[in-house]
Amino acid sequence: MSLEGVYDEGNVFALILQGKIPSTRLYEDEHTYAFLDIQPQSKGHSLVISKWSKARNMLEIEDEALAQVMATVKKVAAATHKALDPDGIHIAQFNGAAAGQTVFHLHFHIVPRWAGGPAGFSAHAQGNFADPAALEALAEEIRAQF
Amino acid sequence: MSLEGVYDEGNVFALILQGKIPSTRLYEDEHTYAFLDIQPQSKGHSLVISKWSKARNMLEIEDEALAQVMATVKKVAAATHKALDPDGIHIAQFNGAAAGQTVFHLHFHIVPRWAGGPAGFSAHAQGNFADPAALEALAEEIRAQF
Repeated sequence: MSLEGVYDEGNVFALILQGKIPSTRLYEDEHTYAFLDIQPQSKGHSLVISKWSKARNMLEIEDEALAQVMATVKKVAAATHKALDPDGIHIAQFNGAAAGQTVFHLHFHIVPRWAGGPAGFSAHAQGNFADPAALEALAEEIRAQF
Repeated sequence: MSLEGVYDEGNVFALILQGKIPSTRLYEDEHTYAFLDIQPQSKGHSLVISKWSKARNMLEIEDEALAQVMATVKKVAAATHKALDPDGIHIAQFNGAAAGQTVFHLHFHIVPRWAGGPAGFSAHAQGNFADPAALEALAEEIRAQF
């Protein structure tokens, strides 16, 4: 995995943080932002990012930014668990295209799992966009649990 | 996912921490321990755990323990990257059997990825135990990069 190049200020998560692209907010604090994935691997699939770190991946992230992101991952996992009562929660973070990374602003996936349902990340799910109104209704359920 | 029950003091990672089961150490500090997975999903697949937290999962982990574990995940990812030069690194953490969790002491997986190789977690890999001498040789390569 190449560590050459620099953070792309025009990546989709940077644009979300700048308010130039809409997103379905679950939670935010001074340092982090959590929102629903628009190509969900399961109901309630969300993402957590740092608001200030320009790290593309785990090799670049500052310890402080990582701790902030993880504290939010924990909060979002708990709220998602309360709202949706999944049988499990899969947390994942991809570094490099070969590992499945598509946006080069470090992010953690929080994916609720149900027994008998899919367990991995599927390319099929990644190609299917969720209905924005359905995402907003779902976000409201989860936001109520913070 | 049930949050009933309590931490099992006899789980395999607890026994590793107590020195009752051998493991192939990559790194440790006061609060965390990193070692190679004996059923690797790829060359260099390792695990990071807290030495003191009795958390089974992300819903139970203390923020402090989580920050400590993540700082070590970052160190191990960097050393693994230097030693093995993978095309990507997949970081994963499973909560609940339905999400693929098999040991109920919170742990993060660090899985090097190579272009064209597997991208997910396979049950097949999980059933195949690595040769201990090969793991030790690999650990030596990675330990040299901390």
